[in-house]
Amino acid sequence: MTKISRDIIAKSGIVINQDKDLYSFNLDTILLYNFAKPAKKGKIVDLCSGNGAIGLTLAAKTSAKIYLVELQKPLADLAQASITDNKLDDQVKSINTDVKDVLQYLDHDTIDTIVCNPPYFAKSDQTKIKESPVLAIARHELKTNINEILHQAMILLKENSHLFMVFRPDRLVDLLSAMKANQLQPKRIRFVRSHKTDVANLVLVDGIKTHKSSSLMVLPDLVMYDGNVLSREAKEILNE
Amino acid sequence: MTKISRDIIAKSGIVINQDKDLYSFNLDTILLYNFAKPAKKGKIVDLCSGNGAIGLTLAAKTSAKIYLVELQKPLADLAQASITDNKLDDQVKSINTDVKDVLQYLDHDTIDTIVCNPPYFAKSDQTKIKESPVLAIARHELKTNINEILHQAMILLKENSHLFMVFRPDRLVDLLSAMKANQLQPKRIRFVRSHKTDVANLVLVDGIKTHKSSSLMVLPDLVMYDGNVLSREAKEILNE
Repeated sequence: MTKISRDIIAKSGIVINQDKDLYSFNLDTILLYNFAKPAKKGKIVDLCSGNGAIGLTLAAKTSAKIYLVELQKPLADLAQASITDNKLDDQVKSINTDVKDVLQYLDHDTIDTIVCNPPYFAKSDQTKIKESPVLAIARHELKTNINEILHQAMILLKENSHLFMVFRPDRLVDLLSAMKANQLQPKRIRFVRSHKTDVANLVLVDGIKTHKSSSLMVLPDLVMYDGNVLSREAKEILNE
Repeated sequence: MTKISRDIIAKSGIVINQDKDLYSFNLDTILLYNFAKPAKKGKIVDLCSGNGAIGLTLAAKTSAKIYLVELQKPLADLAQASITDNKLDDQVKSINTDVKDVLQYLDHDTIDTIVCNPPYFAKSDQTKIKESPVLAIARHELKTNINEILHQAMILLKENSHLFMVFRPDRLVDLLSAMKANQLQPKRIRFVRSHKTDVANLVLVDGIKTHKSSSLMVLPDLVMYDGNVLSREAKEILNE
């Protein structure tokens, strides 16, 4: 018997079906949802969408069509159940496919915004894999990798459209190099720390597809805790 | 009549001859001096050393030989005057040459630490050039660029030795991509802001020459001001 829970990000009102034995959304998901500024209309893609938490919740911020692209069927099925439960069938589509095959479903240069919470761990970094197969694929670059994902993002996006991602700062060089190699210019970057005196544990990136060179803004940090309590900004993000 | 001033970084005790009409050290110099951890012996190179402020002041931290590599003769001459004034002729050498010709003076794979405060502005970004020729060359990529500098740094450094740099965050992608392309792995990165709520205006990087992949630490920010007054850390750095 699987245990499905129904959870809501912030005050979006959109219910996400989750199976804690597979993969559940976490702080990263909520922060990316908060950071992303989706196009108000047109088409949005959530690449590596998992159970669809970010893409589905974006329906609270936009009336654009939203496509959830996820390789793993158990997660794509959960996303479909959430689409139905929220009566979002007209706005949100679940596409159960490999990122590398996404052009069988969506046309190049047609997407207005991409959001992506990709697998974080490089394939070489295999010591940490202790999870279930579904979770391992969601967290490690076993079936795709940051280069492939950003290449597909570049192909899908319209010129001057934005990509919003969350990643690990320890792989910042991989992330920014792969963006540069794929004509995705980082425009804004924000580091997330537990306390202001801690090393950063997440990075949020807003990139734009363009041939022009552009300059990067390193935004003020998002600091989650002030001593033992949530910072004012963290509290706002978690309950907005 | 040129106006030479004699200035000291922090409490190093080392006097730097400066000509304010050419190029003077500034906050960037002091922050890089503070951030750098020079090898205690062996050979250190200050690439694009200007009037030698960082390299010379490092003599307060190390007994290694220090080589100041600077293209512009008026600046290299000032550095030589400072070497003499501080009686550092046995430890510090001024090399008046183009970065691309540095291997005529130093051997590859022999340097234990490199420090570098390079020109910040890309050649394409020419709208801002309003300075004297000497200052323009010090600040803009007119005679060298970040790729060339990092390539030479890679050739000079011993395996597993460190490079310490200061740069502008708006060119972070150029910096990290050029490091990656030259087998210089960023190990620690630190952003500097005026206030904690400001966009970063400087970035300090500690990289290592290695074939191995390595993970990056994004250190806690250096925040210079707390309201209208210097922060405790800024005060310590400026007067240490």
